[in-house]
Amino acid sequence: MSILVVGSVGLDDVFAPSGSRKRTLGGACSYFSTAASLYERVQMVGVVGQDFPQEHIDFFKSRDIDLSGLQVIEGKTFFWAGRYGANLGDAETLDTQLNVFADFHPSIPAAFRDAPYVFLANIDPDLQLEVLDQVNNPKLVALDSMNFWIATKRDALTKAFRRVDLLLLNETEVLQYSEAGNLLDGAQMLLDLGPKALIIKRGAHGSMLVARHMDVAQRFFMLPAYPLTSVIDPTGAGDTFAAGLMGHLARTDDTSLANLRRAMVHGTVVASFTVQGFSIDRLRELTRDDIHQRYDDIRFMTHFQCVTPDEASRFQHTIT
Amino acid sequence: MSILVVGSVGLDDVFAPSGSRKRTLGGACSYFSTAASLYERVQMVGVVGQDFPQEHIDFFKSRDIDLSGLQVIEGKTFFWAGRYGANLGDAETLDTQLNVFADFHPSIPAAFRDAPYVFLANIDPDLQLEVLDQVNNPKLVALDSMNFWIATKRDALTKAFRRVDLLLLNETEVLQYSEAGNLLDGAQMLLDLGPKALIIKRGAHGSMLVARHMDVAQRFFMLPAYPLTSVIDPTGAGDTFAAGLMGHLARTDDTSLANLRRAMVHGTVVASFTVQGFSIDRLRELTRDDIHQRYDDIRFMTHFQCVTPDEASRFQHTIT
Repeated sequence: MSILVVGSVGLDDVFAPSGSRKRTLGGACSYFSTAASLYERVQMVGVVGQDFPQEHIDFFKSRDIDLSGLQVIEGKTFFWAGRYGANLGDAETLDTQLNVFADFHPSIPAAFRDAPYVFLANIDPDLQLEVLDQVNNPKLVALDSMNFWIATKRDALTKAFRRVDLLLLNETEVLQYSEAGNLLDGAQMLLDLGPKALIIKRGAHGSMLVARHMDVAQRFFMLPAYPLTSVIDPTGAGDTFAAGLMGHLARTDDTSLANLRRAMVHGTVVASFTVQGFSIDRLRELTRDDIHQRYDDIRFMTHFQCVTPDEASRFQHTIT
Repeated sequence: MSILVVGSVGLDDVFAPSGSRKRTLGGACSYFSTAASLYERVQMVGVVGQDFPQEHIDFFKSRDIDLSGLQVIEGKTFFWAGRYGANLGDAETLDTQLNVFADFHPSIPAAFRDAPYVFLANIDPDLQLEVLDQVNNPKLVALDSMNFWIATKRDALTKAFRRVDLLLLNETEVLQYSEAGNLLDGAQMLLDLGPKALIIKRGAHGSMLVARHMDVAQRFFMLPAYPLTSVIDPTGAGDTFAAGLMGHLARTDDTSLANLRRAMVHGTVVASFTVQGFSIDRLRELTRDDIHQRYDDIRFMTHFQCVTPDEASRFQHTIT
């Protein structure tokens, strides 16, 4: 099943404790498309300027990403510069130049309008609404956003929240939007707007699913991050979490809560690879075998019951 | 299998957003013993003053906690006062009065010296070493500590770390002791001292096991906290996490890595009840059925593979 993604394609300057990169491929749509293309065919909608390097276009094409929705127009490509501190938490934004993104309006090619899986990456919620007006009854729409839109476009964002199936937000964003005293009350407030499920991203602390269901065992799913001893560049972690998630959902075409959990594991795995390199470097060589290996690792690192007898034999080592 | 615990028994003033309590039963040993007594017979070693209310003694006895190692001496009982902020993170200590604890030296009754399971609650590491000198080849010794001892008694603490099987520390303590740049490197440094396993407590973000094992699937286990919409008083969460953990290990007398994982779930469950009341209030009425219910909840909220077919049928609800 194909996946339609609408978001930013850009060039980034990134400064991290481990090094820096100038004018490297960036933007949520670039990260998402690269990672999701390991699962299913991706239909990209975005905009770049005439300065956008041909090598990136060639790379996207090499991944069988359909670029017929990528506008190439006069002007400069979206640019972002950010710096990560020693703890590799949120980046400090040093510069944002919207450039060709300033007047962008997504135009969904006719061939994309029936995409069953749609990801609205983090862009102006008014543009996310424009996308929703152009697609034909998708099976599942997921939406990402950020603190900036919560602060500046709350009404449009609320309209968008009401029209999607799945929200992807981080802890801070849930609390900021809901103004709730705790995360679970905030999650409920968001679900009350209409989405069937909310995935709360917690960075190095993993992610949490809150679904519209009264049974506690179905309502919540909690997943840690993959343990890493070194992180090179956190940029794109959230976008590629979404890519693994949507990739698995689209590939299996199964939107049950059980499969949504497994899709979150795929998201976790893909994001864990992303942050082990600058830009999309690590993703260029990532294989489905790599993904399955870490998927199994996470299963072993989180389950405490019902591994198979053969698997259980691996855990008989005692600590005394 | 009986569990020997050595630690503080005290009286607390606690101020939290949800209310406050004065001179309520506190101390790591009180919390631990109350919770662990739901699993196995507890042998308590500590000290209180003559002001220690008889009702608490009677309560401990009602739980079949063996108090023959609890010294009652002239003077006042250990006192702590603390305040929790709106986010219910670490308490701000308002007052600490060691009182009878100032000159305390643990004396392990002869009948306790063969205890197979020993928990060294958070006290002066020199006293933890004194306990280790008095016990006869226990099957498993676990140790808790805190930032104060890392800062002021690092050498004694290191000696204690070298002599135990299992360390229980929080994220900050691991980084403080190891001075490592990340948690996993810090964990390795601690394991290199001798313990077979380290459990890193992460508060509302759960806990993580790091074992001395090269296989990644056996080396790591990651467990979220039980999701709660309201926390009354976080005091004792760590002590009762240890109690559920040690309780399950002692009750099953199984120290395999597989069972250590399940023991961590017990710890998580018991701690989740603890913080839903002041002092040990919620633990007084806690039953093993309550524990099993939340244990199953956590299994459902963390597993994404290999639930039984009957259980799996609960997750076929779709989000689209």
